Amino acid sequence: MNLTEAFMQSLFAAVGKENVITDKEPLVAYGRDYTEDLQYLPSCAVLPETPETVAAVLKLCNENKIPVYTRGAGTGLSGGSLPVNGGVVISTEKLNRILNIDTLNFQATVQPGVINQVFAQAVAEKGLYYPPDPASKGSCFLGGNIAHGSGGPRAVKYGTTRDYVLNLQVALPNGELIWTGANTVKNSTGFNLTQLFVGSEGLLGVVTCIVFRLIALPAHQMLLLVPFKTAREAAVAVNEVLLSGITPSALELMETSGVQISAEATHTPFPFHNDAAFYMLIELDGDNTETLMQQAELLYPVIENCGGLEVMFADSSELKEQWWKVRRGIGETVKQASVYKEEDTVVPRAALPDLLVAVKEVGSRYGFQSVCYGHAGDGNLHVNILKNELSDEVWNHEIPKAIREIFEVCRDLGGTISGEHGVGLVQKPYLDVVFTPQHFRLMRGIKAVFDPNHIMNPGKWLD
Amino acid sequence: MNLTEAFMQSLFAAVGKENVITDKEPLVAYGRDYTEDLQYLPSCAVLPETPETVAAVLKLCNENKIPVYTRGAGTGLSGGSLPVNGGVVISTEKLNRILNIDTLNFQATVQPGVINQVFAQAVAEKGLYYPPDPASKGSCFLGGNIAHGSGGPRAVKYGTTRDYVLNLQVALPNGELIWTGANTVKNSTGFNLTQLFVGSEGLLGVVTCIVFRLIALPAHQMLLLVPFKTAREAAVAVNEVLLSGITPSALELMETSGVQISAEATHTPFPFHNDAAFYMLIELDGDNTETLMQQAELLYPVIENCGGLEVMFADSSELKEQWWKVRRGIGETVKQASVYKEEDTVVPRAALPDLLVAVKEVGSRYGFQSVCYGHAGDGNLHVNILKNELSDEVWNHEIPKAIREIFEVCRDLGGTISGEHGVGLVQKPYLDVVFTPQHFRLMRGIKAVFDPNHIMNPGKWLD
Repeated sequence: MNLTEAFMQSLFAAVGKENVITDKEPLVAYGRDYTEDLQYLPSCAVLPETPETVAAVLKLCNENKIPVYTRGAGTGLSGGSLPVNGGVVISTEKLNRILNIDTLNFQATVQPGVINQVFAQAVAEKGLYYPPDPASKGSCFLGGNIAHGSGGPRAVKYGTTRDYVLNLQVALPNGELIWTGANTVKNSTGFNLTQLFVGSEGLLGVVTCIVFRLIALPAHQMLLLVPFKTAREAAVAVNEVLLSGITPSALELMETSGVQISAEATHTPFPFHNDAAFYMLIELDGDNTETLMQQAELLYPVIENCGGLEVMFADSSELKEQWWKVRRGIGETVKQASVYKEEDTVVPRAALPDLLVAVKEVGSRYGFQSVCYGHAGDGNLHVNILKNELSDEVWNHEIPKAIREIFEVCRDLGGTISGEHGVGLVQKPYLDVVFTPQHFRLMRGIKAVFDPNHIMNPGKWLD
Repeated sequence: MNLTEAFMQSLFAAVGKENVITDKEPLVAYGRDYTEDLQYLPSCAVLPETPETVAAVLKLCNENKIPVYTRGAGTGLSGGSLPVNGGVVISTEKLNRILNIDTLNFQATVQPGVINQVFAQAVAEKGLYYPPDPASKGSCFLGGNIAHGSGGPRAVKYGTTRDYVLNLQVALPNGELIWTGANTVKNSTGFNLTQLFVGSEGLLGVVTCIVFRLIALPAHQMLLLVPFKTAREAAVAVNEVLLSGITPSALELMETSGVQISAEATHTPFPFHNDAAFYMLIELDGDNTETLMQQAELLYPVIENCGGLEVMFADSSELKEQWWKVRRGIGETVKQASVYKEEDTVVPRAALPDLLVAVKEVGSRYGFQSVCYGHAGDGNLHVNILKNELSDEVWNHEIPKAIREIFEVCRDLGGTISGEHGVGLVQKPYLDVVFTPQHFRLMRGIKAVFDPNHIMNPGKWLD
């Protein structure tokens, strides 16, 4: 869409001309994320430096009914930030300051453009812990984590982003700034606007400041790696580990084909086992190494009984890093191997064996290869469907039917279609699998309360 | 208000005549709760036996624009369920079944009329743990806990009701039943309707079924009791305990006057210390008694440095029960001692010393006695203001100004006006201390989406 000269002058006045990008070449980067090969071109991108400026930009766009797409680091996997209708992209990249780390209250106040890992390291230096760690933690922004309710491997013990957000400052389309709650871990005062914003994917307003709660930093981690002969054995073992009474700080499953691709592409050594169809990564953490050793010893027979082929122990920080690097690399490297679609299925964790079997059954029926991996302890399984030699016809018209079948299995098992990536653009066609017309009516109604002119992230799942 | 004969006939048809109470005498009990001496008379009370019946009653009331007040066990402390405009009370007392305890997924499905403690015991028998434990746990319903986002002593380590709700079935005013989410610990699919309902105080719909997540039951508890000479020393000690890196499963403060009243009224022995102004109750839990002993030993010097007069250890389950009985009894017994107003203040926990000092300063300025106690580890302090010899004039016109001052202190310290009781009726006059007109606009807008005819709990904080 073309923005008028008058609008652009107002925008320059609001945010500073130096903070507005209008040239096509640099704009391209503001029109894509990590989702497949999707690309849209916004009319311009603005880089506000204060919450007040964000609010002013929203007010201006609202008055002129210009679409607004809020963008973090662009690491999203559902296309949630893409400017599908053109208009203005608000990038939070200049709102990148850690304002306060409160070691007395175990809280921190940060801007949305702070990188997840930068924040986690800053609080760790003060003996505190911010657990949520998406695979993209080295580049993703905390604001994007909030927009999608991001998880990560540590969610099995520590929960997701949602569980660490105490209070949010948000800019509303009408140009107002409000705080959604209070800086307390308990709050029964009014509707929970804070949790309404977490996972709202930029449809309601723009998060301009965040108060997180933190916890004490565990002193030690221990990492175990277990190959399994079959998907079902591996998935059953996930449940048995958790039923043993020990809650690992990570409990991941990785299909061997994904491990191979990642290890090769990242040039990382990995202790492959000839008979392994799946690998399980178990991280234990705590303040006492003896306790961790005791927990590991308790787990050995549990794993053995479930068909674990061996239990490998990372006895150096180098090994730990290698195994994690391979795990974290799967998502990205598998996608470089083929055109792909990535699904973010989630079920009650004991239903994981059934889900895995169903994914493979659907795959063999529709003739696609899938690489499965993810946060098995949460029942959150990423399914990367590879195009490989499939025709465009099959890819565009048959595979969506297969994905729908997989999501129906998720629903029937008590789960849903996204555990941590969000619905965004690419899950939009499947939303009726889990939502009734009532859900849409309520959610559209809520959106209209915050955004009556429908300028926030139009063209996404709620439209 | 008078309900028409035609409406009553439809109500009988929907819910069964035997499930409708219209006689004044039994109706009285449906018009009060545990909040001060408030009493309102509903036109009738209905006791539905199924979610579908609840939905049918809502539809009928919606079509006839009859006020609906949902009621659990009536243990609320903010007047949230009181039928201030008359109309229909929906009691959930017959929706009282535990439908499923899923030991594989650590989940349970229950109806809203199940008593908190009955549920906690049922899951404990299967080795699982439902931590939220309001003082009224022996009688309060889980549905009421959800309506108010209830907490309790264990929240300092385990969080509140909010943190255990995975999915809710709710009846909407239009007569539809929906599930708000999925039975998974991770969910990034659409707006978080589940957490919107938690703490919504019956303003949006009626919760008809609940899926809770559970955790593994810790095997052991240890209880310590520490007297302190001053409020400030006790409040500072709360913070120092948490900064030691140990997270107790309860960390409570009790003002001596409250302990005296409770111990006497409940005929319970208590080891009073002559110099104590406040007592701290510290509960540690875990699977290993040795670890608990080590933690207790680590805490001794911390507590001593903060002015703890001695550290008493409950070396029998009898002692543990006695100390907890005195703690849990304070709220109710203090109220029997005088006409009172109870406030549910909450601040970031390190601000607790400042809050305590401020409460006493306001009290001495306005001339009232207060008894303070509560969940200090969360910064959640209950302030019982006693009327004693104050005139009605002062009580009705001056004390509200004092309460407003206390809430302003809470806000300025980063806190808010209710940590776990809800706003309901009695906190309504103070809501502007923490909410701007924008907050009211958004919350009223959200309510109108769910309840366009404004039949759900009219006359409460949002009106």
